[in-house]
Amino acid sequence: MGIGPGHLSDMTPRAQEAIQAADLVVGYDTYLELIMELLAGKEILATGMMQEIDRCQAAVDQARAGKNVVVVSSGDPGVYGMAGLVLELVMKGPAEQRPDVQIVPGISAVSAAAALLGAPLMHDFAVISLSNLLTPWEVIRKRVELAAQADFVMAFYNPKSTKRVTQIEEVREVVLKYRDAATPVGIVRQATRSGENVILSDLAHFTQETIDMFSLVIIGNSQTYTANGRMITPRGYQL
Amino acid sequence: MGIGPGHLSDMTPRAQEAIQAADLVVGYDTYLELIMELLAGKEILATGMMQEIDRCQAAVDQARAGKNVVVVSSGDPGVYGMAGLVLELVMKGPAEQRPDVQIVPGISAVSAAAALLGAPLMHDFAVISLSNLLTPWEVIRKRVELAAQADFVMAFYNPKSTKRVTQIEEVREVVLKYRDAATPVGIVRQATRSGENVILSDLAHFTQETIDMFSLVIIGNSQTYTANGRMITPRGYQL
Repeated sequence: MGIGPGHLSDMTPRAQEAIQAADLVVGYDTYLELIMELLAGKEILATGMMQEIDRCQAAVDQARAGKNVVVVSSGDPGVYGMAGLVLELVMKGPAEQRPDVQIVPGISAVSAAAALLGAPLMHDFAVISLSNLLTPWEVIRKRVELAAQADFVMAFYNPKSTKRVTQIEEVREVVLKYRDAATPVGIVRQATRSGENVILSDLAHFTQETIDMFSLVIIGNSQTYTANGRMITPRGYQL
Repeated sequence: MGIGPGHLSDMTPRAQEAIQAADLVVGYDTYLELIMELLAGKEILATGMMQEIDRCQAAVDQARAGKNVVVVSSGDPGVYGMAGLVLELVMKGPAEQRPDVQIVPGISAVSAAAALLGAPLMHDFAVISLSNLLTPWEVIRKRVELAAQADFVMAFYNPKSTKRVTQIEEVREVVLKYRDAATPVGIVRQATRSGENVILSDLAHFTQETIDMFSLVIIGNSQTYTANGRMITPRGYQL
């Protein structure tokens, strides 16, 4: 289940009902804090970052035992979230007593960031995670290169972390081969959460801004422009 | 403002509050029908399909005149929706009395379709509209080719209409150059609406299924598989 970017106003009624009906709510503690007021009286299993497999396996085990379990993702569970891992673990287990899994979509981080920036995703776009924890960097880099060549608007999850700082700089260099240095770039940090921050920059300079694991970066296509503080990718209407 | 895929359970509280606060609600009549019960007593401007510019211009004019106006998009207004057109029209007008525009994100059609299919978008993906009404087909075709080469999961909006039937067949041929004929393909029609239909097929055969302007098509990457009726793209965890 997806809680959306963080503010309860962006969490769907379907997601709220899933919590209400749950016997057990499982999630990364930072995300559970965002929906604390919905969790009163609920059994909770909160774990730290990087413990995705243990967390989801515990949820699947409890569901096998007959509990109605909700696994919480931020944003959309189907976009770099927990939907896949839960399904993979369910399928790995025995076919008998396989728990029924329902994916409840949420407002994705990329949708939330785009809304704050204006309308950068009005044309074809590619969504890429720069984390090389689970994917070789060469695969990611090739995707960046081909997406730049195809003139996709590009949205980057996990653009940078404390330990991983070079990738976003390489992205900048690769995309500069295909797009103008003045191409608009939007950086949204902590969308809808306390500390929300929206920056409009350009391809030449954006890596000089604060970018971290709470940021989402959107690079415009060849038609994207900024006007009055908004980032706009035209759809192609003759106005 | 985005209403999500169609069912009120997937429309966020923020979107519902926007409607409540509106003096005027503007939208394509088919989408307004989906949220009819929220519109009691509201001033409404409903127009037919393909009248996007007139509709959004009327909304901007009324906002300039001081009204609180909501423009309704299905899915996410930021993904092939009305967010861009509204901003473009606002920026084209005079800078004085420029109405303040807020984009309220919604559950996108691609998120809704992915949730019904399982977890196809767990890795990098490209979103492409096959409508050549506003974009030359050669640009779209090139994007398909490069996205296929980059091993992106691919999601297609507007895959086919009554008059436009050849593009999805070309997509199949292009992607077959880079991916196995058994690559899973999901087709979701009318997600969360009456007539909802979910089909799992493969790259060799999917164009034989019913695909129309209410369908969203997702082609898996080289790692995507199906299990127990679900389409799953592994994120890369060692399980």
